[in-house]
Amino acid sequence: MDKILSFHPLLADKVRLSIMGVLANSNEPIAFTDLIEAMQLTKGNLSSHMKKLEEGGLIKMEKEFVNRKPRTTYECTPNGREHLKEYLEQIQALLKFN
Amino acid sequence: MDKILSFHPLLADKVRLSIMGVLANSNEPIAFTDLIEAMQLTKGNLSSHMKKLEEGGLIKMEKEFVNRKPRTTYECTPNGREHLKEYLEQIQALLKFN
Repeated sequence: MDKILSFHPLLADKVRLSIMGVLANSNEPIAFTDLIEAMQLTKGNLSSHMKKLEEGGLIKMEKEFVNRKPRTTYECTPNGREHLKEYLEQIQALLKFN
Repeated sequence: MDKILSFHPLLADKVRLSIMGVLANSNEPIAFTDLIEAMQLTKGNLSSHMKKLEEGGLIKMEKEFVNRKPRTTYECTPNGREHLKEYLEQIQALLKFN
């Protein structure tokens, strides 16, 4: 029996895990500007996390034009949701004394 | 509303979190040698984690002699248990879509 948690390495960071939680709880894509406001992170800091999450296939980015202005949105992928579910299940199994 | 998780920094590492889970699930102190076997970690690696957890007040170390042999045991402190509970609650609140 392996006692060490083995969730997706990108979820080990609490900022990235928090971003994933916000995206996974939303039924629609969230604009980058709204995420900045929600997470209270700098643009550069958030960008860097989003890039990693996208490369890892946990989120999906979309760029579109709204009233001729570019708009970037993000959403959690089914794969991302699967990893979050696994993460939660592992934590709950580990801390079953509660 | 703060969207970023804010659990105890020592719990951000999944090996340490795993060790804490094992200790918190046990009703009695666990010997260092048993922990090595359970966690499948090297002595040095486990020692380093235990030292950090102890310094952070999340676990308590005890040294005793059993049949004239020194024995080191560890147990989760009430404070450690409190932080684990907080961790679990935060994760469950974050991933409430499940």
